Amino acid sequence: MTTADHYSPIYRDELLGKVLPFWEKHSPDPEHGGYFTCLLRNGQVYDTDKMVWLQARQVWTFSMLYNRLEQKQEWLDMAMLGADFLEKHGRAPNGDWYFSLSRQGRPLVQPYNIFSDCFAAMAFGQLYLSTGEARYAETASATFRKILERRGNPKGIYNKAVPGGRALQGFSLPMILCNLCLELEPLLEPQLVEQTIDECIHTVMEVFFDPTTGLVLENVEPGGGLSDSFPGRLINPGHALEAMRFIIDLGARRGDAKLCRKAGQRILHMLDFGWDTTYGGLYYFLDRKGYPPEQLEWDQKLWWVHLEALEAVLKAYVQTKDSRLADWFLKLHHYSWPRFSEPEYGEWYGYLKREGTPLHTAKGGKWKGCFHVPRALWGCWQALEALRTS
Amino acid sequence: MTTADHYSPIYRDELLGKVLPFWEKHSPDPEHGGYFTCLLRNGQVYDTDKMVWLQARQVWTFSMLYNRLEQKQEWLDMAMLGADFLEKHGRAPNGDWYFSLSRQGRPLVQPYNIFSDCFAAMAFGQLYLSTGEARYAETASATFRKILERRGNPKGIYNKAVPGGRALQGFSLPMILCNLCLELEPLLEPQLVEQTIDECIHTVMEVFFDPTTGLVLENVEPGGGLSDSFPGRLINPGHALEAMRFIIDLGARRGDAKLCRKAGQRILHMLDFGWDTTYGGLYYFLDRKGYPPEQLEWDQKLWWVHLEALEAVLKAYVQTKDSRLADWFLKLHHYSWPRFSEPEYGEWYGYLKREGTPLHTAKGGKWKGCFHVPRALWGCWQALEALRTS
Repeated sequence: MTTADHYSPIYRDELLGKVLPFWEKHSPDPEHGGYFTCLLRNGQVYDTDKMVWLQARQVWTFSMLYNRLEQKQEWLDMAMLGADFLEKHGRAPNGDWYFSLSRQGRPLVQPYNIFSDCFAAMAFGQLYLSTGEARYAETASATFRKILERRGNPKGIYNKAVPGGRALQGFSLPMILCNLCLELEPLLEPQLVEQTIDECIHTVMEVFFDPTTGLVLENVEPGGGLSDSFPGRLINPGHALEAMRFIIDLGARRGDAKLCRKAGQRILHMLDFGWDTTYGGLYYFLDRKGYPPEQLEWDQKLWWVHLEALEAVLKAYVQTKDSRLADWFLKLHHYSWPRFSEPEYGEWYGYLKREGTPLHTAKGGKWKGCFHVPRALWGCWQALEALRTS
Repeated sequence: MTTADHYSPIYRDELLGKVLPFWEKHSPDPEHGGYFTCLLRNGQVYDTDKMVWLQARQVWTFSMLYNRLEQKQEWLDMAMLGADFLEKHGRAPNGDWYFSLSRQGRPLVQPYNIFSDCFAAMAFGQLYLSTGEARYAETASATFRKILERRGNPKGIYNKAVPGGRALQGFSLPMILCNLCLELEPLLEPQLVEQTIDECIHTVMEVFFDPTTGLVLENVEPGGGLSDSFPGRLINPGHALEAMRFIIDLGARRGDAKLCRKAGQRILHMLDFGWDTTYGGLYYFLDRKGYPPEQLEWDQKLWWVHLEALEAVLKAYVQTKDSRLADWFLKLHHYSWPRFSEPEYGEWYGYLKREGTPLHTAKGGKWKGCFHVPRALWGCWQALEALRTS
């Protein structure tokens, strides 16, 4: 890619000059610990609830940058602010992670959502690498083991499906596990890591793939077949692209060029399928048969979808040098930056209407915190640097 | 209202000539019983799951019209098609109603949602009036009693709130009970009816009302106070208008002119608050402090919201003769008809984007069946007839 020199500093400067400062300035709760994530365009706090997903993700972000980019004390302090809060308040008596807490740390919503646990494991895994504190390693690996135990029925008692009714498997957990086992590799036995990676690659690349249409699926029958139902028809292009990016990471780690090429092909196909040819951008949800998805937000354009797409095409390009991926990088870059980035206060908008204007101008909420923007800016910057020096 | 002569036949003809024929033609499942509700613009079935809400609501619609408009055998047959299916497949062993069933009647989703029970009680209550069959009265009143028993914790074991966390009361159930106790009046002891009505009027008009802003609230503290949280800030103008319409029905039944005037005032205020002054139409969700609602569909314009608004203003006008309500009828009528009604195949579109164009063109789905359109067309037509002859 001849243009890596041009783009690399754009991603770096946005991360270091715009996005991290926004969260450093506006998110810390000095009184009770943890972070505010419900922030308006200018950083004003509009709600003080603390979602465990987002607390853990912010711990991970600052700790990861401390580990991989620079050992800045303020980044470690920022990570510790959330980690202390999570250690104090985040877990139910059985060790599962609550979904949300009040500003003070009072539990509000039960541990029905296993992704709280996934992000807590990521957070404490990174923090162990930052600090060498054995307690954090123990928290991360104990949480990881409980995730593996719960994965057959991740919602547990909160599962509303009738046994024997329509027991679909969901894509999210195997997808996250692809990433999580690389994240926690330093803490786990090598055999468990390799076994989990093998299972995840098989599940993500074979079980949740429809060879007829070439689409990555969100929900499949227990045996792996297509389900003609709302969840069974659902396509989430951003999810598929994020998962393919995790597969590229695994392929790169194993030196498996064939796996990287396969993931690259699927990235190209999902981009073609998910792209809005009228207004540009990637749809949030589609139905694989073209019917109306049940999600009323299906045609919106979400920040994380576009950031995951950017990181996926760059990382796939690094591995495969397929020029169509480079073309898509430019197309995605030129769609995303003018619409999502917001230079005045920093951090990106989250939700655009189909036509590309903001649905609202908040920078954070119940589902958007300090995670996808810095993670993908970092990932894109690193991929662009790899291209510059290759 | 001088224009009732003009509008009354419009509502009648749409009901009888466009909407009922759509459902009569496309929704019956002759093979397994019950109704298809996931129907494209032209009536083509695109999903065969059977949501208990929508099965029961369609039983109610056809049975109600049989009872109140005309004893047409095909309407009773249509009601029976769904009632037989629900009797056979709709209830869990403990008597609670499942949320959804497969086409064949296999239970898919557990009875986590008490509104399935509310609509089942309405359906079998009407069907008892149509048939005199004691079994239907028993089903309706047993279901009603279980709803009253469950109302302290309607989600039961599926409630994800941590005890002692943030135990808000929701508006939906007291609102529906306002309507349900009138629906089931012929089956219940008069004392239970009067007591439930008293409680409902108090709850809807006092507990879920913020005198400072004049807004009807969706969720309040257990003691009735404001909660500064996403659910506590949520405003659903359509819900509030539907509830005020139920209150008008109760006020009319009791000859309580003061209650009707109060409900009329709140209708006017919620219309002013909920109206989109840029594109017209009523928003789906708003935040009472002006922050971004968590619902990404907040700015969409929904069929039921506008139909409930039309029926509410007409019924309030019948009771109060406040000319501002008549003005709102015209404004709502001229917004809604060109955008929601679809004369080629009948039945209205469900979901418009903020700007007023369809989000998709399906006529039914998981949450839209044969209910709000015919119920409100019927209610508006009857109110317009009352004005013509008054």
